[in-house]
Amino acid sequence: MRVFGVDCGTEFTGYGVVETDAAARLSKLRPLCSGAVRLNKKHTTAVRLAQVYAELTALMQLWQPEIVAIEEVFFSANAKSALKLGQVRGVALLAAANCGLPVAEYAPLKIKSSVVGYGLAAKEQVGFMVARLLNLDEVPEPADAADALAIAICHIHHAQTAEALKR
Amino acid sequence: MRVFGVDCGTEFTGYGVVETDAAARLSKLRPLCSGAVRLNKKHTTAVRLAQVYAELTALMQLWQPEIVAIEEVFFSANAKSALKLGQVRGVALLAAANCGLPVAEYAPLKIKSSVVGYGLAAKEQVGFMVARLLNLDEVPEPADAADALAIAICHIHHAQTAEALKR
Repeated sequence: MRVFGVDCGTEFTGYGVVETDAAARLSKLRPLCSGAVRLNKKHTTAVRLAQVYAELTALMQLWQPEIVAIEEVFFSANAKSALKLGQVRGVALLAAANCGLPVAEYAPLKIKSSVVGYGLAAKEQVGFMVARLLNLDEVPEPADAADALAIAICHIHHAQTAEALKR
Repeated sequence: MRVFGVDCGTEFTGYGVVETDAAARLSKLRPLCSGAVRLNKKHTTAVRLAQVYAELTALMQLWQPEIVAIEEVFFSANAKSALKLGQVRGVALLAAANCGLPVAEYAPLKIKSSVVGYGLAAKEQVGFMVARLLNLDEVPEPADAADALAIAICHIHHAQTAEALKR
């Protein structure tokens, strides 16, 4: 199974691709790539969104994942920032749909508890556990890339649990 | 000048194309098309966004406007609805960018005062004035289509005023 995780943000949008061997029950996780699209504030919103869309689409076409995993957003921040985040999230969802990929959404608490074992874990703990689970020497940077890998790992854990329950 | 107006919404996204003769000072406004993309609630968010993107892109390619005019959003509603609206708005802005079109944004107050002459006009007044300005026998439906036409008209009025000031 190959999962494309996306962590949308109004400054950086992180991505990370994680693969696992479907046959093994507690199979190893392999990171294939991770990084972040930086939104250049000099450009107009439309051009920035076009950049996110083009980069995510190119990465999805390159890595050919089976599914895209994305964070569900519930939040208490103000409506203005929610609208801006929504614009980026809309473009990420569109990239998945236009690449013919299904989308799985996970709440932030689920992602953290899946990776760290604790839903209210700090950002640093997530990065640290992502590095451990993926056998990386360093925590992936920027933090948005680590978060995107965490979302991909969360999906793999959920899929493996569902598979185990079936058996 | 040919302007493509878009009125984003989480249920209907209205569009309307208005043309004017650039040579004439108080030139007549001609409506070329208007309508709304309805988001089918049976589909996933990603598929719904793909539908909005595909329809807006097809319409922009068909009508070849010079510019896309869209409402600026400032609002006091909750963050959840702002996020949802942002997703649709992001996809509309992306359609414009990927069609190589510039985007002009207008605040709701500006749109209403440009069309009705009064920033706090009711929705019905906007529809009524859009029909009068475009010489239509009936108010365009749904209301989102009338709003999209109002946004396009607002852009034409602003462009004409800017042009007149230059002279």
